[in-house]
Order: sequence, then C-alpha cells, then structure tokens
Amino acid sequence: MKNKINTLISTICDKAITASRELALLDTRQKNKILHAMADGIEAHAARILTANRKDVLEATSAGLAEPMVKRLELNTSKIKAMAAGLRSVAALKDPVGRELRKWKRPNGLVIVKKSVPIGVICVIFESRPNVAADSAGLCFKSGNAVILRGGKEALRSNAEIIQAMLSYGIRQGLPKYALQLIRTADRAAISELVQMQGKIDLVMPRGGEALIRAVAENAKVPVIKHYKGVCHIFVDKSAKTDQAIEIIINAKCQSPAVCNSVEKVLIHRDLAKRFIPALYSRLDKLGVELRGDAASRKIEPGIKKASKEDWDMEYLDLTLTIGVVDSPEQAVAHINLHGSHHSDAIISENKASQKLFLAQVDSAVVYVNSSTRFTDGGEFGMGAEIGISTDKLHARGPMGLEELTTYKYLVQGKGQVRR
Amino acid sequence: MKNKINTLISTICDKAITASRELALLDTRQKNKILHAMADGIEAHAARILTANRKDVLEATSAGLAEPMVKRLELNTSKIKAMAAGLRSVAALKDPVGRELRKWKRPNGLVIVKKSVPIGVICVIFESRPNVAADSAGLCFKSGNAVILRGGKEALRSNAEIIQAMLSYGIRQGLPKYALQLIRTADRAAISELVQMQGKIDLVMPRGGEALIRAVAENAKVPVIKHYKGVCHIFVDKSAKTDQAIEIIINAKCQSPAVCNSVEKVLIHRDLAKRFIPALYSRLDKLGVELRGDAASRKIEPGIKKASKEDWDMEYLDLTLTIGVVDSPEQAVAHINLHGSHHSDAIISENKASQKLFLAQVDSAVVYVNSSTRFTDGGEFGMGAEIGISTDKLHARGPMGLEELTTYKYLVQGKGQVRR
Repeated sequence: MKNKINTLISTICDKAITASRELALLDTRQKNKILHAMADGIEAHAARILTANRKDVLEATSAGLAEPMVKRLELNTSKIKAMAAGLRSVAALKDPVGRELRKWKRPNGLVIVKKSVPIGVICVIFESRPNVAADSAGLCFKSGNAVILRGGKEALRSNAEIIQAMLSYGIRQGLPKYALQLIRTADRAAISELVQMQGKIDLVMPRGGEALIRAVAENAKVPVIKHYKGVCHIFVDKSAKTDQAIEIIINAKCQSPAVCNSVEKVLIHRDLAKRFIPALYSRLDKLGVELRGDAASRKIEPGIKKASKEDWDMEYLDLTLTIGVVDSPEQAVAHINLHGSHHSDAIISENKASQKLFLAQVDSAVVYVNSSTRFTDGGEFGMGAEIGISTDKLHARGPMGLEELTTYKYLVQGKGQVRR
Repeated sequence: MKNKINTLISTICDKAITASRELALLDTRQKNKILHAMADGIEAHAARILTANRKDVLEATSAGLAEPMVKRLELNTSKIKAMAAGLRSVAALKDPVGRELRKWKRPNGLVIVKKSVPIGVICVIFESRPNVAADSAGLCFKSGNAVILRGGKEALRSNAEIIQAMLSYGIRQGLPKYALQLIRTADRAAISELVQMQGKIDLVMPRGGEALIRAVAENAKVPVIKHYKGVCHIFVDKSAKTDQAIEIIINAKCQSPAVCNSVEKVLIHRDLAKRFIPALYSRLDKLGVELRGDAASRKIEPGIKKASKEDWDMEYLDLTLTIGVVDSPEQAVAHINLHGSHHSDAIISENKASQKLFLAQVDSAVVYVNSSTRFTDGGEFGMGAEIGISTDKLHARGPMGLEELTTYKYLVQGKGQVRR
C-alpha cells in the first residue's frame, strides 16, 4: 500500500513539475483569462458542486462529524458565488511574477537583474472548508505555481467537483492540464508521502487546525510555511487611553473569537490596574466573555476566575480571555516573547518610548500600536487576498499574498566576461 | 549521553535567544565598533590562534586526515590578517537591519511599515576551514543575529581561539556575551540535536561538502538553507561567437575547478558541433582537462572519452568536463532542468529569442547570457561578502549576503482602530 501511494504521489508531482514549466510561459493576460474561465466554470457547475457537497454533508453527519466541522463543510449558492468572485478578484490583482526587484551593473559590465519568478510546485493541505480549494488554486495559479491540493476526506466529493469545474473551463483557455491537481485518495499516508517529496514539491502549506499543522511540519522534508496558532496579546500601558483600550480589547476578543488574530491575553500595567480592570471586567462580562486572571487582577476584581499555568499559552478561539498585571513594558515584552505565538501583538499606549520599545522588541509577525490585532489579514493589509498567515520567519512572515508565493532568480547579461 | 548533549545544546540555544534580544538593541555604530574590536582581537591573539592551529594540524596529520583537508585546516599569518580584514570590511557594509522595505497607509488610517529585522538565532555548521568561524560570526553579528557555530572536530582548538579572541575584544565594546557561541564537544550527536531545536534555532546553514549538507538537511526540523552541489552547465547555441564560447568555458572550468560555480557540463547545438567540438577539445586538452562525451561528440572528436550515465549528474570539482550535443535551446533547457543542480547555468548565444527562452525557462538561482558561471559569488555580485550560496527557492536564492540574513516584521501604527 505504501509503495502504491508513493508511486501515485510521485507521479502527481512529476506532472505538476511539467505543468509548472508550462505555467512559466503564460503571460498576465492569459492567466487572467483563465482565472475568469475558472470562475465561470464554478458558476456553471454550481448544481453539480452542491449535489456533491450534499453527499459529503450527509455522510459526515451520519459519521458523527462535529457540528462546527459540518458547518464549515457545507456549501450553498452564495458560498459558490463567493468562490467565483474570489477568482475574479485574484484576476484583478497585479501579477506578482516578472517584477524587476533590483537591477544593477557591475564594474566589469555584467548587468544583473533580480526578478520575481514562481516558486514551482506548491502543495496545500487543508481541512473541511471546500472553498479553500478554489481560493488556493486561484492564488497559486496567478503566481505561476502548479498546485497539488489535499483536502479533508469529508470534503472529497465537493473538492473534486470544484477542481473539475475549474479545470474543464480553464483548460479550454489554455490552463496546463496538470496545473491544478487534487489528491483523490482518502488515505492519510498521502500526506506523509507529499511532505517527503524533496526536489519535487517546493513548498507545503498546511491550512487548518494545530494538529494538522503539527502533523505536516513534523514529518516534512520539504519546506513548510505555517502558523501553529495565534496567541495574540494586548498590553495596556499606564499611559493608555482607557476607553480606547477597552474598545480595542472588545473588538479583538469578540468580533470574531474563533480566528487566529483574535486576542487571547491582556497584560495591564500595574499603575493602571485598579482603575482599568473593573471597567474592563464589567464590559466583557456583559458580552459573555469569561475572564481568567493572575492573583493581582483577581484581588482587584474577584469575579475573575483563577488562571492556570496552561492558560498563559492557550489559544481559546472562544469568548475566554486571560488577563494579568505587569510592572513595565519590558516585563510585558518578555512575557509576550515567551508565551505568545509570534503572530500579532499590540500595545495601547500614549507614551512614545513605550511604543518604540514594544515595536522593536516584540518578536512577532505583526506588532501594533493602539489598534486591534484583528487587522492581521491579507485583505485588511491591502494585499487583496491571502493564502495564509505565517508565524515562521523565513521567506514570508505575517499575511501571505501573491508576492509571497513567488521567489526570485538572478538574470545576468554579459558580453563574454570571464572571471580574473 | 544523548540527554547530556540535549541539555548542553538546549542551554546554548536559550543563551543565544537572550543574546539575540540584546543584539536587537545595538545600533549600527555600536555594531561596527564591535566588529573592529573583534578584528583587533583576532590580530592580537594571532600567536595563540597559530599555536592552537599547529596542534590541530599535527593531530589531524597523525590521524591520517587527507592532504587537502589538512591544507584547508592550516592557518598562517596572512590568513589571520585576512580574517581580521574580512571583519573590518563587514563593518563597512550597509546595515541590513531596520530598512523600511515598504510603508503604506490603509483607508482606515492604519500606517503599516514592513521593516527588516534580524532572523534571530542562526546555527552555522561547517567543516575544516577555521576562517569560516570568523566570517560567519561577523556576518551574523552585523545582521543582528546570535550565532551558534559548529566546526569540524579537527579544527576545534583553532575555532575556539578565534571565537575567544573575537569575544574578549568584542565584549569590552558591548558585544552580548552569548552572541557568538562555539559548540565545544566533538560528539557528532551535537549536530542532530542542533537541527531538532525547533522554536530555538531559526535557521541552520550547513557549509561544506555534500555529505555534511545532506546529513544536516535530512534530519532537520529547523529551517535549513543550503546548496548541495553545483552542477553548472554552459549551452553553446548555434549563433554563439565560438571564440567567446571557448574562452568562457575555459574560464568556467579551469580558473578554479574545485568551487561550486565552476562548469561541469557543456551542451553544444548540433549545427555548430562539427566546427566547435574539435576546437574546444584541442584547447581543453592542452590545459589538462579530461573530456567525456556522448556518442555524437565522440564521433566528431574520438579523443573524447565515453560519458557514463552518471556523468551527466556529477559534480567533479576537478579538471573533468562532460560534453553533449543537443538539437535546440529547448532541449538544452530540458536537460539542464533535469540534470543540473539549479545553481548557475549559462547560454552562449547571439540570438535574442534563444537568450530569452533560456533566461525564462532555466530554473536556476543564476542564469547567464554570454558570461562565465564563475560570477555566482557574493563579492562578484557586489554584496560585499557572502555567507553561502542557496540553491533552495525559499527565503534566499543564489549568493546570500547580509540582507539575506534578515527577515521582516510589520509595524502597524493606529489611533484606536477596530475592525468592523
């Protein structure tokens, strides 16, 4: 079985490599035409996609899949329209390939151009939401990469119809046949094979829960860009405008609690704590947020539950928030660098020196001053679309848009130069 | 033993993380002062370094280490001066940290700055040449990274004295105590521990032969940037200026055969082969280059030895060259993408369309037109210094200078913005 899967994946990769060479020959106009065709394809195949999706949902429900997972799996007409619209908006984005990143001439006359090029073959491993198939395929295609998709087995029929719709309409407009490929086996061994395809897959991007991401990253021989979780912090400095701080915390916690850029921990400067914590507690309590805290905060507001040691590192993804009291911005920074997930962290402060210290020393992808952490998002950053958020430091950090799906190469033009 | 080494490496990593936070606080002037102090330290400790090196060389010789390895291990006064001069030249380079890579304002008033920052903790694993210790330490330090060095066990005494000299002089000028650390155990288990330090080491760079690099990359859980080998190609198109092509091939093969950017394979357009191959053979034969070739080339010039199947993928690093005849630039490109190492490849051609095709489709870090492949080098590119050459595609590709030793983060300045 192992050998059969290995052969299957290896063949898929070889086809993807061939497709990636063909993709390199498409110009922006051709790519955009194909993206529009793929969007048309999804709309034209809407009925088929919905039928397949209903089968997936029925099977998942009878197999006892958890309610929120089933919800994420479920498609409807408006979700299908959104997928098509997403592809059209990717067509409208600037082509990230072929940008001249730098050009210079050496004293010996060599002209060196550093030019953006596709990465090559990208594998996206995702969970229940079938729209990730269309989104990822669109972004990888626009950036000139061949993509291999591996979705959750519960969404196999839905994903297959979506990709089939994109392919059948795309190929008529010149899409290379193997530019989008879906792994159609439900066997989990496929994932282990995919992440071992050194030299065949250039990048693996897991999109899903922490368990999936760890499973991918820990077995990978191929480069992986990922974020494990978002344990985002807000530090309320002593000079903070307290009303502003409360509004920001409420927004960062409550507007969409289940996403990675929602806040999970609030640290409060000791000089402000007595005044601030009761006000924060009363607002959050009304909104149904469960507050957990350290001894200092609980002494001020006994309604706060006791935080365990584990609370400080946990990503709740629900209406729970842990708060603590710190003595200084320095202590806040040290706490965040130790317990945070290097995702998004904010300082609320009117003090320029504290702001500067926080921005310089918090080792996270995005560091905010006087703003909600919820803005860490490709759309909110103006990238137009994102394929994910990286808490890694190499290649891409923070929201990853089209540019982050490219690499570069050096083109050197000479007139017979040799090295002396 | 395993646990002891694990504890040792883990402690070294924790100290490096602390040092990396301190490094972030140094400004350019301070860093340059420290680099000059480290250079002074190496010169002041020259006698000690040479004494240590003599012991290393004696032991290596009596242990039967191969002659070229011993040569690489051996230091002398001029090599020590060159190390110090290298550090001073790194001081003269532009600080890669704190560059504003992009700045923009969102419609909601948020101001986003994408700023270059150090990667954090970098581990350099290298072989016999002790000057790599000083070079790597200097480049990592200038780019604000803490560095953990693991040299060859045959150079342990030399490396220890070099690092000691840099530290003792550097610390007096404000170098954080654990910014440079050398692994002092000869136990090979240290390498396996280092490459498993996820979350503690941000990047591992192996510098050495293919065996070392494979050993590092195949066990790594930590990101690795590497190049396995340089199987560089030159394709001589039918429109090539033949004299120019011969001079370029001679330079790329003979000027320094043992380096990764020397040429190993030459492909010749069939229309040119009859005229070109005898001329090339006669020049290279006089220079002591052994030519191996395919049937077509051997039919033209019987002095050419028969190339085996393996020859097409081999990095010789000596005066051996394999040549073959191809029908078109397309065939040359396909061959190079299959057999090359994605390092440096050149086309010699006066035809614009062939040049364009070759530049666009050869999937290598550096692609040349009418030039020797020997220019793939940080110095030759004008980067001032290089820590290595990457044949990977993520983060850094081609020669890696100071800028490639940084990552970025987003700094977002708000005035109370919340997400709607």
